[in-house]
Amino acid sequence: MHTRYLWIPLLIVTIAIPLGFYYVDWSKSGEGAGLYSRDWLPQAIFAYWNPDDFYESVKSVKGEFSGEQCVDCHQGVTPGIVNDWRKSRHSKPVNDQAVVYCSDCHGNNHDDLHLPTPGVCAACHAVQHEQFVDEKRYGFPSHSLAMERALDAKHFVDKPKAEVTACLQCHSVASKCDSCHSRHRFSAAEARRPEACITCHSGPPHPDDETYFHSKHGQLYLQEGKNWDWSKPLKKGNYPVPTCAYCHMDNGKHQVADKSIWGFGIKQVNPMSSGNEVKRNQWIKLCSDCHDPDWASGQLKQLDAERKQSWQKLYQAESILKGLRSDDMLSPSAAQRPPYPGDVPGDFMQRERIGFFEGQASAFYNVSPIERDYFEMWYFNNLKSYKGAAHGDVSFVNEGQVAMDSSLEKITQNAERLRQLAEAGKAIQDTSRKGKTDKGDNILQEIWLRGEYTEYNRDHN
Amino acid sequence: MHTRYLWIPLLIVTIAIPLGFYYVDWSKSGEGAGLYSRDWLPQAIFAYWNPDDFYESVKSVKGEFSGEQCVDCHQGVTPGIVNDWRKSRHSKPVNDQAVVYCSDCHGNNHDDLHLPTPGVCAACHAVQHEQFVDEKRYGFPSHSLAMERALDAKHFVDKPKAEVTACLQCHSVASKCDSCHSRHRFSAAEARRPEACITCHSGPPHPDDETYFHSKHGQLYLQEGKNWDWSKPLKKGNYPVPTCAYCHMDNGKHQVADKSIWGFGIKQVNPMSSGNEVKRNQWIKLCSDCHDPDWASGQLKQLDAERKQSWQKLYQAESILKGLRSDDMLSPSAAQRPPYPGDVPGDFMQRERIGFFEGQASAFYNVSPIERDYFEMWYFNNLKSYKGAAHGDVSFVNEGQVAMDSSLEKITQNAERLRQLAEAGKAIQDTSRKGKTDKGDNILQEIWLRGEYTEYNRDHN
Amino acid sequence: MHTRYLWIPLLIVTIAIPLGFYYVDWSKSGEGAGLYSRDWLPQAIFAYWNPDDFYESVKSVKGEFSGEQCVDCHQGVTPGIVNDWRKSRHSKPVNDQAVVYCSDCHGNNHDDLHLPTPGVCAACHAVQHEQFVDEKRYGFPSHSLAMERALDAKHFVDKPKAEVTACLQCHSVASKCDSCHSRHRFSAAEARRPEACITCHSGPPHPDDETYFHSKHGQLYLQEGKNWDWSKPLKKGNYPVPTCAYCHMDNGKHQVADKSIWGFGIKQVNPMSSGNEVKRNQWIKLCSDCHDPDWASGQLKQLDAERKQSWQKLYQAESILKGLRSDDMLSPSAAQRPPYPGDVPGDFMQRERIGFFEGQASAFYNVSPIERDYFEMWYFNNLKSYKGAAHGDVSFVNEGQVAMDSSLEKITQNAERLRQLAEAGKAIQDTSRKGKTDKGDNILQEIWLRGEYTEYNRDHN
Repeated sequence: MHTRYLWIPLLIVTIAIPLGFYYVDWSKSGEGAGLYSRDWLPQAIFAYWNPDDFYESVKSVKGEFSGEQCVDCHQGVTPGIVNDWRKSRHSKPVNDQAVVYCSDCHGNNHDDLHLPTPGVCAACHAVQHEQFVDEKRYGFPSHSLAMERALDAKHFVDKPKAEVTACLQCHSVASKCDSCHSRHRFSAAEARRPEACITCHSGPPHPDDETYFHSKHGQLYLQEGKNWDWSKPLKKGNYPVPTCAYCHMDNGKHQVADKSIWGFGIKQVNPMSSGNEVKRNQWIKLCSDCHDPDWASGQLKQLDAERKQSWQKLYQAESILKGLRSDDMLSPSAAQRPPYPGDVPGDFMQRERIGFFEGQASAFYNVSPIERDYFEMWYFNNLKSYKGAAHGDVSFVNEGQVAMDSSLEKITQNAERLRQLAEAGKAIQDTSRKGKTDKGDNILQEIWLRGEYTEYNRDHN
Repeated sequence: MHTRYLWIPLLIVTIAIPLGFYYVDWSKSGEGAGLYSRDWLPQAIFAYWNPDDFYESVKSVKGEFSGEQCVDCHQGVTPGIVNDWRKSRHSKPVNDQAVVYCSDCHGNNHDDLHLPTPGVCAACHAVQHEQFVDEKRYGFPSHSLAMERALDAKHFVDKPKAEVTACLQCHSVASKCDSCHSRHRFSAAEARRPEACITCHSGPPHPDDETYFHSKHGQLYLQEGKNWDWSKPLKKGNYPVPTCAYCHMDNGKHQVADKSIWGFGIKQVNPMSSGNEVKRNQWIKLCSDCHDPDWASGQLKQLDAERKQSWQKLYQAESILKGLRSDDMLSPSAAQRPPYPGDVPGDFMQRERIGFFEGQASAFYNVSPIERDYFEMWYFNNLKSYKGAAHGDVSFVNEGQVAMDSSLEKITQNAERLRQLAEAGKAIQDTSRKGKTDKGDNILQEIWLRGEYTEYNRDHN
Repeated sequence: MHTRYLWIPLLIVTIAIPLGFYYVDWSKSGEGAGLYSRDWLPQAIFAYWNPDDFYESVKSVKGEFSGEQCVDCHQGVTPGIVNDWRKSRHSKPVNDQAVVYCSDCHGNNHDDLHLPTPGVCAACHAVQHEQFVDEKRYGFPSHSLAMERALDAKHFVDKPKAEVTACLQCHSVASKCDSCHSRHRFSAAEARRPEACITCHSGPPHPDDETYFHSKHGQLYLQEGKNWDWSKPLKKGNYPVPTCAYCHMDNGKHQVADKSIWGFGIKQVNPMSSGNEVKRNQWIKLCSDCHDPDWASGQLKQLDAERKQSWQKLYQAESILKGLRSDDMLSPSAAQRPPYPGDVPGDFMQRERIGFFEGQASAFYNVSPIERDYFEMWYFNNLKSYKGAAHGDVSFVNEGQVAMDSSLEKITQNAERLRQLAEAGKAIQDTSRKGKTDKGDNILQEIWLRGEYTEYNRDHN
């Protein structure tokens, strides 16, 4: 290209970049929240999970009140939470610290109360807050990115609001500290115990609850944990067995992301990369608080082998799906589905995304049945096995592997059936094929193809 | 119609009504129990669950004994239960109350002992018994109707006795107070704790166990509950977090039915009816023991949305099934199945019942595969989501919704397949169709159509 | 046969028997472990589960040390385990017993440490060890046979090592006492509590965890267990409700096999055989520590009925599979699969094994999809119901029965489909059939038929 034409791309870029920024700003400035704020309004309860954007103060009582007045009145109105506060260090500070009253976090004006976000807690707990925010450097999954990544995902806009609401309750961990230090004790001792994590960390995609409590560590905690001194910091020699926080937040560090090797099990990683070698040594050192370093190293190798084995199975399934895609046998195809908000409608740019690296994570909703089977295999069965291996619950490794075998079998059978039907359709001529299209497909179309379901959700979101 | 012929319907009614009563009486007077007592004899263990009808005293020891004598002897024979009794208020009454000995509930004659039913307990605990019985006004589901509604259900007669026995263990809550106040402590403190409810309230159709313990309430109970003073009544300020009983039996009321809005999740209701408005305010008041009323109201709205979403999916599945029914594609059809006891045999009056309002609840056994898939979607997946939303366990909302999506997909695929097979059968003529009937159908017939399986159960029930 | 030819079989036997012994010896003398030691090398972590064969001492520290020196140094290196030991009876022996130091079990030479196997513990705990080893008389399932039976199973060689490793963690119960008496407290009190068993006894094929804790026994343990005196022996009157060990190891007997009636639920047995009559009386006597003997007998009968019902369903499924086998419709068939190690390759001697009595247990891996469905029905669903009935968790009986119904339906449908496809294939001629072979079968072949997957595992095991 002649340099004299360089002004053309330069001009385009000069226009396109500000336009892009302008579009994102415009998109975020709707009534809802996140990148698709113009397509999405939350349910009422969400105000308590993302108070900065949506909380509106109760107006039942007027006036400004001192902290002592709050306590006096609420002792009668909501005695339980006042009792909690009385047991907290906020009400009984040590040394020369001041009492932290209700009003210090919620404000004095009862007409304009606010719910405390992490920034409010940071006024006193700066180190913890800084560590918490530091997680953002490591990408998702992450506590501190949990809310914004959720709100910016396309499928959060398309899914029925009732379902998305269920997701957001846990994702609110980014917006409030009482997910782990529950109100109004805000106890460090509480957060050291596994129960603090489990409200969110249970169920198919992250069975941390199930796998920890099935492990020997968990069983010893259940037997003896009530007698341990939970006021002690999470350090070598202080606890007979580890809890979630002992390993993942050792020494109380509020940044949980930097020791992560296998990426939450959702993508394949090279566990022996130079970066991961450093992390492996961190883990071996941690396990060596109680175990032989060789034991710890053996456990890591076992986890490497489990991951490798799981990804072999997952890639087999992916490969079957990619074969179907290249033969145009996925139905509904990406082009047949209603486009995500922001996508160009019609065939242009619509493409099946299969597997993690193509981004199926955001496409598990509103896809063809066989893709959903793969999603289940990847997001539920695979992670069952991973968490089992990571937390020492071998029954979950077996369950996960057996479930992956079943999924792979289902995918194989259904792929075969899709091909057989296509051939049988050709063999017995177009007559019956037409019939099929009219009846069988209609059932599917009612649900997916015409997008009525999605349209409904979008109208009501 | 001329009034002079009025005597004809009058005569018929005059004869029919007594005949009907006579028939029900006759039907109930068999060796078994319930409306189908002539078709159904329970297993031995059932005597302990429905003692009024079936318990026969042990005959190992003869003679009449005083309460003290019972205790002296059983201290050696069954020391555990005597130890329990010694810890109970029955053995250490307060004020001027008399000791309640073994004989006060079981009788003095060792040759004719009886097991105490709620009526026996009512002699001292009249208020609680009255509240318990008052539940009957609200219909099923209900503790006090649990046994009779089970015994009067047609499918309880048809199902293998081994399976029905499993149902009846929990349904015995209507016949004995020690389902919650376990013998021989009969402790109120025990029944205030969630474990008292969980022996029955766990598993797919009512995962109250799973959802409560995954909630923040449940996790705090697990951490701290052992230190709370369980002798306190279930009132505002007495407990840091609620338990099952705190919310559903507030102030210790033994009538659990009158605050129920969503009907256990098994049917669609209008949550904003005037009756439900009253109940909503009761709930908001209850939640306000600790929470902002706006928070409570937001949670109820979230549950409304979850219910609406779930019923959208359920109605889609129902609609597919109704389409198959109207095209005569359900196999076995109602007419092909052995009739329920009391039903007229053959084609007459046999009709598929699809979904809750048509009464599928009692038909989930002995149905065509696709109807069973719907049952699973409605009774297991739907209730998983409902209980998750009701108890604050969002992971169960997600699991339930994902499972409903899978079920809907399975139902859609199988409906499509049934239609394709029908068309393919026409296309490739009767020759291969006949082959199909001879082989494929035979397999089905062995299991369902000829009713051998059902006949066997009925003969052995 | 003329007796003068008797020398021929005699000669053959004389040669064959030593040859057989020689072959087994040779097969066991490979680098790995068990009967297929030449085909199988374990992962590193396995050294800790089968130390006799694989553990190699850490070499980090040189020299010989006294017990006191071990303690002094490890107080700093691994304080947690030293704290555990300090709480154990090993460090605070009663009467005139000597302190049991680290070196008494691990050796003094830090260059040649060993991990203690049951034989090491037997030096002091001879009675318990003798009872433990006595289990071998009763066959598998068994604690003391757990490791050798696993290592000698053909499918342990063929399955991916990552999966087998998960199995072996629990099967190591045969090689080390700290599966139940966890290091370094080695507490009897710990092993009396259910948590000691649950690390292994949970999950689909043996949901002892789930079923015990859903039972009234389990719920009362959860409520009150923390206040019981666990130093007491497992005898009548010492505990308000039983735990796993109270019933299965009554009076602390370390032989768990001799009271087993229903064979772990994996095979059908006659529960009224003379041998089982004796066992039934043992159970009734045990239950009578707290319950009426009639109650206990009723529970056993309920379990008989549950078993009978489950086997009816299982035999229906077996019968469908045997029908497919006799019509040569299982694909891949036994002959098409890669032979197990030690088997003669090719068609000779290859035969489908269907159901427990034909030995499917060792064949659930690498089988046709419909056989796998049967395996799931038999090994997961059936055992769910069995354990539910055995431990008093009726929700699991229902879940298991419903799941068996679903499996049976799936097997029936898929068998029908296999037959329909075969007939449709004939009807629409060989043309489309060929297409099917080229495409559909290829997918399957990639996974099973050519054995690449199995070959890979075998090369890397």
